[in-house]
Amino acid sequence: MPVTSQRLNIVTTLDYALPVPAQVLMQIGVARLPDQRILGETLDIGGLPVAIHVAAHGGVGERAWLTPDSALQVRYEAQIDITRETLPLANLFADALTVLPADAIEYLLPSRYCPVDTLHAASMEMFGNLAGGAAVEAACDWIGSHLSYVPGASHGGTTAIDTFHSREGVCRDYAHLLVTLVRGIGIPARVVSAYAPGVNPPDFHALVQVWLAGGWRLVDATGMADPAQTAIIGIGRDAADISFLTIFGSAFLNEQAVSVELA
Amino acid sequence: MPVTSQRLNIVTTLDYALPVPAQVLMQIGVARLPDQRILGETLDIGGLPVAIHVAAHGGVGERAWLTPDSALQVRYEAQIDITRETLPLANLFADALTVLPADAIEYLLPSRYCPVDTLHAASMEMFGNLAGGAAVEAACDWIGSHLSYVPGASHGGTTAIDTFHSREGVCRDYAHLLVTLVRGIGIPARVVSAYAPGVNPPDFHALVQVWLAGGWRLVDATGMADPAQTAIIGIGRDAADISFLTIFGSAFLNEQAVSVELA
Amino acid sequence: MPVTSQRLNIVTTLDYALPVPAQVLMQIGVARLPDQRILGETLDIGGLPVAIHVAAHGGVGERAWLTPDSALQVRYEAQIDITRETLPLANLFADALTVLPADAIEYLLPSRYCPVDTLHAASMEMFGNLAGGAAVEAACDWIGSHLSYVPGASHGGTTAIDTFHSREGVCRDYAHLLVTLVRGIGIPARVVSAYAPGVNPPDFHALVQVWLAGGWRLVDATGMADPAQTAIIGIGRDAADISFLTIFGSAFLNEQAVSVELA
Amino acid sequence: MPVTSQRLNIVTTLDYALPVPAQVLMQIGVARLPDQRILGETLDIGGLPVAIHVAAHGGVGERAWLTPDSALQVRYEAQIDITRETLPLANLFADALTVLPADAIEYLLPSRYCPVDTLHAASMEMFGNLAGGAAVEAACDWIGSHLSYVPGASHGGTTAIDTFHSREGVCRDYAHLLVTLVRGIGIPARVVSAYAPGVNPPDFHALVQVWLAGGWRLVDATGMADPAQTAIIGIGRDAADISFLTIFGSAFLNEQAVSVELA
Repeated sequence: MPVTSQRLNIVTTLDYALPVPAQVLMQIGVARLPDQRILGETLDIGGLPVAIHVAAHGGVGERAWLTPDSALQVRYEAQIDITRETLPLANLFADALTVLPADAIEYLLPSRYCPVDTLHAASMEMFGNLAGGAAVEAACDWIGSHLSYVPGASHGGTTAIDTFHSREGVCRDYAHLLVTLVRGIGIPARVVSAYAPGVNPPDFHALVQVWLAGGWRLVDATGMADPAQTAIIGIGRDAADISFLTIFGSAFLNEQAVSVELA
Repeated sequence: MPVTSQRLNIVTTLDYALPVPAQVLMQIGVARLPDQRILGETLDIGGLPVAIHVAAHGGVGERAWLTPDSALQVRYEAQIDITRETLPLANLFADALTVLPADAIEYLLPSRYCPVDTLHAASMEMFGNLAGGAAVEAACDWIGSHLSYVPGASHGGTTAIDTFHSREGVCRDYAHLLVTLVRGIGIPARVVSAYAPGVNPPDFHALVQVWLAGGWRLVDATGMADPAQTAIIGIGRDAADISFLTIFGSAFLNEQAVSVELA
Repeated sequence: MPVTSQRLNIVTTLDYALPVPAQVLMQIGVARLPDQRILGETLDIGGLPVAIHVAAHGGVGERAWLTPDSALQVRYEAQIDITRETLPLANLFADALTVLPADAIEYLLPSRYCPVDTLHAASMEMFGNLAGGAAVEAACDWIGSHLSYVPGASHGGTTAIDTFHSREGVCRDYAHLLVTLVRGIGIPARVVSAYAPGVNPPDFHALVQVWLAGGWRLVDATGMADPAQTAIIGIGRDAADISFLTIFGSAFLNEQAVSVELA
Repeated sequence: MPVTSQRLNIVTTLDYALPVPAQVLMQIGVARLPDQRILGETLDIGGLPVAIHVAAHGGVGERAWLTPDSALQVRYEAQIDITRETLPLANLFADALTVLPADAIEYLLPSRYCPVDTLHAASMEMFGNLAGGAAVEAACDWIGSHLSYVPGASHGGTTAIDTFHSREGVCRDYAHLLVTLVRGIGIPARVVSAYAPGVNPPDFHALVQVWLAGGWRLVDATGMADPAQTAIIGIGRDAADISFLTIFGSAFLNEQAVSVELA
């Protein structure tokens, strides 16, 4: 399968007001990965005195600690070349658990928004008789035919169980439900924050990586983004790990914009 | 403070029946750590054909993959010297978030049984005006005076919110609630599985590590175990990460015993 | 269909210890209803000074207020003739909502352990295309083939959602799930406390009444009891309304026994 | 205390579109009660063929069944005289449970959005040492000082536990939390739907009735409405019982307006 390179132009601006000084963990930069090359990148944190960079969850990407007093104004620009081989999932096999890399094991287990233990029986009943990639595709299809994409339908505490029942949500909810169903049949799955063209309304996007046939495979439960055109920011067990901003304190949104264009 | 070495003799036996072959992730061995030295150790997995060892969560300890067909019979014996300095927590300061090691950050975030986001307001109200170790001690005291230790009161899905309201549980519930309250005021906290004398009824034990003054400090929310006499098995975000057995399939308990004696 | 009378001999004994005086709402007596005739009945409340009797939820049966100081020792005996016509549900039609009696409407709505709103989409998907009694029978069949009867698997806070996912529980959990699924497709359903032979282990039993073809129809989601041999105690929206003892204060169980025999 | 009559002019308009015909239970009319007199009242249901009126929950007010095909357009106008004695709560005693009217008992028990069982320990700890009306006032004060009124912060499934932790919501959430805390200390409490001037943004309002000193006492946990100027529509165990529209089917809001003015 020929792999064509895709070039993305990304511009992100954040503008928040803080009632009192806070510590903010930010992860908005595209990760350095073999299948996505950063041609150029600038980060303007609005004159904040310091940003301390640390490795992000799972070693994918980097986070910055910011310490704004009253305003958080950030502009990030990047030009990225994506050269990602995207295999059809249906024919990929699931690895025996015993041969998984040690750091994939945590992506089999329950997490804050992905209570795998609770949804285990339903997962097995719906998809447990299918093999590997075919099961993942069937789970995607179920989500596609049962969920409605409704901005505002979910909130910060919405779990995959909530979404399984309410049948509406946004990209993060779609991702949580897919992750939970896939882990529920014994396949590692994790959540991916990303920039992708075609996301409507434009915003940070959430996709899923599933471990099949010896590697992580990127899939979008919402169907809005093409994994071959998606720039990965970070990965995690669920949304708790990949927030673009985790604010220790409080902050009010003034304005926020994400633009992702195919060059 | 003089640190006296403590010697523990540990014997663990597990006996489970499996209706069909399963893949089992086991973590019952004492971790190799600077403050606990393994004098001798044997693991008998009852003639199972193979055990694949992989690094455990956070790099503390090791897990084994077992693939039993119909029976899981395990005997683990170890003799351990603990030489752990246990500082009084009350005077330890909390590090600024920005100087935390990168791999401590995940222990600030919500996890399956520790929904920090939900309990954040209550945590701040109860303990947010205290500093570092004093806040952790106050949280321990609150738990000690409000919770009753009731075997059978909780179940596999019990979260720290459930325990916060029901006010009863076992070591794992005590640990989850302490972790959630401590993360809720911006201090990293994680769950520790361990062997400790004095646990009643004798069993695997769950304690908590909090990050204070540049290091992980071990504390027992139940008050049953002395951190200076506790042999750490593994660590994790919550019980999901530190199960002594995670069974992919199903299994029935025949018999299980944990003995931990001061030598 | 000939309706044969069934005679039941019932003996119930309760023995609780109270740390401090409490107010206790008790509902253990067989309700006076056209299809169950009380031949004889005695209630011994162990010398407690007074019992105030009030109408029970929905006007079915009676409750007694007891005010024990330190011990609650009760013995109830009754001999009952049941003459209940039990139609096959499958052919019974569902009434239009607009012709329901006013006091049936609350049994369409969500309640503490029957969160109809949450399970609505799944209910409609599974049973919404079937008519009336056929839908109720299909819901019973689904429960029968998916749930395991496991004493101790549930607890006081277990809801129908929990049971829908865990797929195990006792009679109360079976009843809650059936009620929730049936309300979810727009048919009134309520929980019934009762005495029935064949319950194993012997205990108070919980069944369900569904409103079909102009009347309440009794059905047992567990399949253990025969509605034609069941003596109704009380009805309610869910278990919150039909507890045999609701204790305002605290109490410890010494001993409790329920015996129900066909005469 | 002299009781002055208050006159209210109420105009409510509802405009919903329905994708397919539905059955709708509507409760928007002011209830006939001794302390609120209906001077004039008109209900225009937009030419819908029929409205069947039935008694509402607890016998307070009336509901109408509507059967719209594609549009639900309603206009309700009323002029009401309120002559309600509003005693200061602080000095009112709580009745012994044993003397409560039988139909008050259900308002002691857990319901869908008021899981009294879960919040019982916290209720007792915070307010259990206060008597009757003083405890209710203290619970109101706690809510007033801990919750923020934030339209959109809650959703259809939000319970009093959610609000207890999130500390934000709208009138229905304030009411649910107050009801849950008050029931938690053994005082009957129920939710009231009403028209009240001063509600901002203008809408149907939710208040609370608590049973103190032999009667139901009206109180507004939000502090926005004056019970002496409030026209009661209906009462219930929680919001499930007092929805102004319960739609069996689906509907989309075009427009809705509630105007309540002091004459």
